[in-house]
Amino acid sequence: MKGKFISVEGIEGAGKSTQIQFIKSYLENFNKSVIVTREPGGTPLGEEIRELLLRPRKDGMSDNTELLLMFAARAEHIKQVILPALAAGKWVVCDRFVDATFAYQGGGRGIHEQRISSLSDWTLDGLKTDLTLLFDLPVQIGQQRVNQRLLEKDRFEQEKTDFFEKIRQCYLDRAVNEPERIQIIDASQSIDNIQQQVSISLNKLLQSV
Amino acid sequence: MKGKFISVEGIEGAGKSTQIQFIKSYLENFNKSVIVTREPGGTPLGEEIRELLLRPRKDGMSDNTELLLMFAARAEHIKQVILPALAAGKWVVCDRFVDATFAYQGGGRGIHEQRISSLSDWTLDGLKTDLTLLFDLPVQIGQQRVNQRLLEKDRFEQEKTDFFEKIRQCYLDRAVNEPERIQIIDASQSIDNIQQQVSISLNKLLQSV
Ligand SMILES: Nc1ncnc2c1ncn2[C@@H]1O[C@H](COP(=O)(O)OP(=O)(O)OP(=O)(O)O)[C@@H](O)[C@H]1O
Ligand SMILES: Nc1ncnc2c1ncn2[C@@H]1O[C@H](COP(=O)(O)OP(=O)(O)OP(=O)(O)O)[C@@H](O)[C@H]1O
Ligand SMILES: [Mg+2]
Ligand SMILES: [Mg+2]
Repeated sequence: MKGKFISVEGIEGAGKSTQIQFIKSYLENFNKSVIVTREPGGTPLGEEIRELLLRPRKDGMSDNTELLLMFAARAEHIKQVILPALAAGKWVVCDRFVDATFAYQGGGRGIHEQRISSLSDWTLDGLKTDLTLLFDLPVQIGQQRVNQRLLEKDRFEQEKTDFFEKIRQCYLDRAVNEPERIQIIDASQSIDNIQQQVSISLNKLLQSV
Repeated sequence: MKGKFISVEGIEGAGKSTQIQFIKSYLENFNKSVIVTREPGGTPLGEEIRELLLRPRKDGMSDNTELLLMFAARAEHIKQVILPALAAGKWVVCDRFVDATFAYQGGGRGIHEQRISSLSDWTLDGLKTDLTLLFDLPVQIGQQRVNQRLLEKDRFEQEKTDFFEKIRQCYLDRAVNEPERIQIIDASQSIDNIQQQVSISLNKLLQSV
């Protein structure tokens, strides 16, 4: 039987990476074989593309280039990792997927949705997440959490509040349009509380199998 | 006055890089200010993408990823280098441009032309070469020349004869469809002879200004 495909989404500091380990163990308790992966990245070439995308550059990067690099990494990831794992019955949990491109490059950078849809149509070729957990929280709280990390900020993290407000809104709009697939998690709460909400969504998916 | 945009195309070993210096000096003799650039590449980010594209990899690269990386580098190149130079009245001579993507990723890899056209439409946004010199020669001769170079072969050069036959044919088909823009140069001849042919095409363009 094919595995299920789950993505986690949300602005910087929403707690995606923190919750993803919980999701993995939770599913493993139900005897699922789980792989955790991320975008941009997830393959050797994809991780090299990720580095190009995240490294701050004096000369900037054009919006079209950013969009095309995201899909270049994704095409490789789908072919080499996601589809083979799902076909082998594994559950795939991905830290960001295509909704992030609509939110960041569409909502954030202002690239027309139609351009992203067209790339998405032929790159994904029918692939969809079975469940997308949208970790939603006020931008300021996310930024405070990121600031605590004390790592050097990447090219996206260096953006201003306004950029992330647009991304948050775009994510929420997508969730309203696809309420079954995209479930909103209140990510401003405590880690325990978020795990509670996450496990409710996971239970529904586990029962649907 | 806006500068002119010239690209040189052809399979490996056709003599593009050899002739491009001649083109530059020839145009400079007519008091044109000329910049020479190349694809994939031509910007700091683009050269990093070029390295990803050319480096041989054990795990290969999916055709879609190759296509998207080509356009990612191109979008940056157009915005940062080509358009500003043309606007400043410079003549731009580019070692490969979008015709190469139709030939290599379309003809060679078999990606549907429609997919490439759609990427081309929004990435180029109306930009076209004023003249494309297609250095045409039998695949075997090109390969013999490349073999003499004694450098390690890149990911494309490692392909088989059949791959380059398809590319050559696709280039020729494009030239037949756009005979004004794409001029076929018999690249199997001596360097001197090729320069003769090239200068005839350049003269026409210089007179049209
Ligand atoms: N519910 C929470 N309450 C308070 N702090 C949290 C919570 N969840 C995560 N954090 C902390 O906030 C910081 C950001 O969390 P995390 O790295 O998981 O976010 P992220 O969504 O993966 O961010 P990014 O998009 O930058 O990868 C970390 O230091 C983490 O320990
Ligand atoms: N007309 C010619 N006759 C014989 N040898 C040539 C001719 N033109 C170029 N060469 C030689 O053939 C080799 C390939 O030429 P060149 O590097 O210019 O080709 P290219 O089209 O740029 O190839 P690539 O696509 O690999 O960059 C070089 O060693 C060059 O000196
Ligand atoms: Mg994270
Ligand atoms: Mg060359």
